[in-house]
Amino acid sequence: MLVARTVAELRAARHEAPGPLGFVPTMGYLHQGHISLVDAARAECATVIASIFVNPTQFGPGEDFARYPRNEERDLEMLEAAGVDAVLLPPVEEIYPDGDMTRVHVDALADVLEGARRPGHFVGVATVVSKLFHIVQPDRAYFGRKDAQQLAVLRRMTRDLLLPIEVVGCPIIREADGLACSSRNVYLSPDQRAQAVALSAGLRAAEAAFADGVRDADALRRIVTERIEAQPLAAIDYVSLSDAETLRELSGVVEVPALLSLAVAFGATHLLDNTTLTP
Amino acid sequence: MLVARTVAELRAARHEAPGPLGFVPTMGYLHQGHISLVDAARAECATVIASIFVNPTQFGPGEDFARYPRNEERDLEMLEAAGVDAVLLPPVEEIYPDGDMTRVHVDALADVLEGARRPGHFVGVATVVSKLFHIVQPDRAYFGRKDAQQLAVLRRMTRDLLLPIEVVGCPIIREADGLACSSRNVYLSPDQRAQAVALSAGLRAAEAAFADGVRDADALRRIVTERIEAQPLAAIDYVSLSDAETLRELSGVVEVPALLSLAVAFGATHLLDNTTLTP
Repeated sequence: MLVARTVAELRAARHEAPGPLGFVPTMGYLHQGHISLVDAARAECATVIASIFVNPTQFGPGEDFARYPRNEERDLEMLEAAGVDAVLLPPVEEIYPDGDMTRVHVDALADVLEGARRPGHFVGVATVVSKLFHIVQPDRAYFGRKDAQQLAVLRRMTRDLLLPIEVVGCPIIREADGLACSSRNVYLSPDQRAQAVALSAGLRAAEAAFADGVRDADALRRIVTERIEAQPLAAIDYVSLSDAETLRELSGVVEVPALLSLAVAFGATHLLDNTTLTP
Repeated sequence: MLVARTVAELRAARHEAPGPLGFVPTMGYLHQGHISLVDAARAECATVIASIFVNPTQFGPGEDFARYPRNEERDLEMLEAAGVDAVLLPPVEEIYPDGDMTRVHVDALADVLEGARRPGHFVGVATVVSKLFHIVQPDRAYFGRKDAQQLAVLRRMTRDLLLPIEVVGCPIIREADGLACSSRNVYLSPDQRAQAVALSAGLRAAEAAFADGVRDADALRRIVTERIEAQPLAAIDYVSLSDAETLRELSGVVEVPALLSLAVAFGATHLLDNTTLTP
């Protein structure tokens, strides 16, 4: 497995790689969710390239950029074991050259949900992914559905900018009790970790109600909210039921594929989860 | 010469074209300035692709998008005669797909000079050129130096977004009396056309003073301003002497390569011209 620390090294390797080329961008501190993306790429592509880059521009002031968990050695072992051909692991100045001032905005989709909670976050995400796409020039790029809004923003960006890349969304990978895998789970205290199971339990309860015929948007949101509010260490950022493509919040009877998504804080740690309800 | 009206047609042709591939993006209504870009591309590249697309997002409300001059038949004849291999000539909906909301911002460079006069103009320019770059995937792209700020913005964007493309700036082509070629020259009345020679004459006078040792920024701007103010039909938008790379306005003694640039209105027609002064 090649480890490229510069754009030039990665480009040289990419040039000789057989296609189709699958790309798995990550911020490192890998878990089974990331490995499932590599597996999906491996199954469909002759060459798989991953990246590890903790992107400063998608963190706001006071967020966890400096303390975001990192473990390069373990990450590289996991990627090699999963069959990755090359990893891009660049310093910040390779991705943000001296004087850098260009930003990619995906306007309406980026202002709600996580974008409302984290102003500028999706500008940072769209900008860094467009840069990584230009370096790697993949045929397909793999992202987890846990970050549902990120996936929607990147699908929209890829389509709007006419990038010749297929954006593939992959299923959420969960721990044994249902908690969605996340690099940030490591921040949780044992008590927080125990209560965090309410996120997925709330979504499962709403799915069950939906299967039983409940279609009212408020009622579905309330099922999730009540489960989480029963946990004394949990503070809800939002529980949203939105049009799965436009992310516009739904009211009344749910008639389209709907994204039921949430963000919940345990102390300074914000966790995400979601499911899609299809009538 | 292939005329592609869809992204898919152009991509298919591009796939089989020998490299290096040169790209000349235009808004049509071609003149000798455009043909000089094709000539430069032809001299350096095995394949030359041009585009003709009057980009709505770079025109402000009340600007000349609807009446921008168009002559598709003549443009295609000129491109074929100049040895272009393929032309992309798409309808707006090919470039701005349904629901399009992604915009590329090149922040600081885009807010001065033309960007101050035309808010949002360079967002439109950077966005459409990034789309065209993704469709054509050229090795080199050719732009005229007449639009000096556009060239600076696109160089910056290409560098920042890590696009594997060389942006080539080509000399300004002029009519016999010195007026810079522009598709908008067709708007000028005979009186306006006669007075418009003051733009290039003012720049030549400042160059001569600079060659004689004049280094004061105000004095150099004044030489240009006075020439233009002597024309009763001319209204100055700006006469600027700025750092050629950062476009920051200079004061005092000029010590760096400096862009002496201007925009002047004759009625509703805004004309640009510039020269670079190198100490």
